[in-house]
Amino acid sequence: MIINTPKPPYYAVIFTSILNEDPKDYEEEAETVLNLAQSQTGFLGIESARDVLGISVTYWDSLESIQKWSQNTRHAIAKKKGKTDFYKAYRTRISKVEREY
Amino acid sequence: MIINTPKPPYYAVIFTSILNEDPKDYEEEAETVLNLAQSQTGFLGIESARDVLGISVTYWDSLESIQKWSQNTRHAIAKKKGKTDFYKAYRTRISKVEREY
Repeated sequence: MIINTPKPPYYAVIFTSILNEDPKDYEEEAETVLNLAQSQTGFLGIESARDVLGISVTYWDSLESIQKWSQNTRHAIAKKKGKTDFYKAYRTRISKVEREY
Repeated sequence: MIINTPKPPYYAVIFTSILNEDPKDYEEEAETVLNLAQSQTGFLGIESARDVLGISVTYWDSLESIQKWSQNTRHAIAKKKGKTDFYKAYRTRISKVEREY
């Protein structure tokens, strides 16, 4: 859903992806990783949608929190699986939210 | 689809929305506005997905280009329609993309 983020500045990680056909265990893995992300320091929330393209935007309080999460061991396993098993194509963009309305 | 954006920095406008049930003329209006956006100076591309939530991310070369687009007369009409007719809820976030991979 649309989440309530604090007054800017804060950070948004825009993850855009196209799934392989029938990616085995994807839903399960996505849920595991989302639950883990939600427990990280500095995690503010997630908004996501998928039709042909999938877009997940996670919001964070700082670049430091994003970096810590990117180095999380379980997250690293998920990213590897994503690369080899789940995604036909994907892109990650790290951005600083300057205004919100 | 996943678009090729230039080397950062550049800007991303993250527009998150929930549609009303059966919003009249929405598809038509969305197409008109998208076509117009694509003709604006500094427009780099769009990525969008919708299931329950809709997320559209438009990419721009600068804040100036975003500001010009926000002041476009036809765009203003569309935003008014969006507010009154199309969206149950929405949020716009303007962010500066600092890294991409």
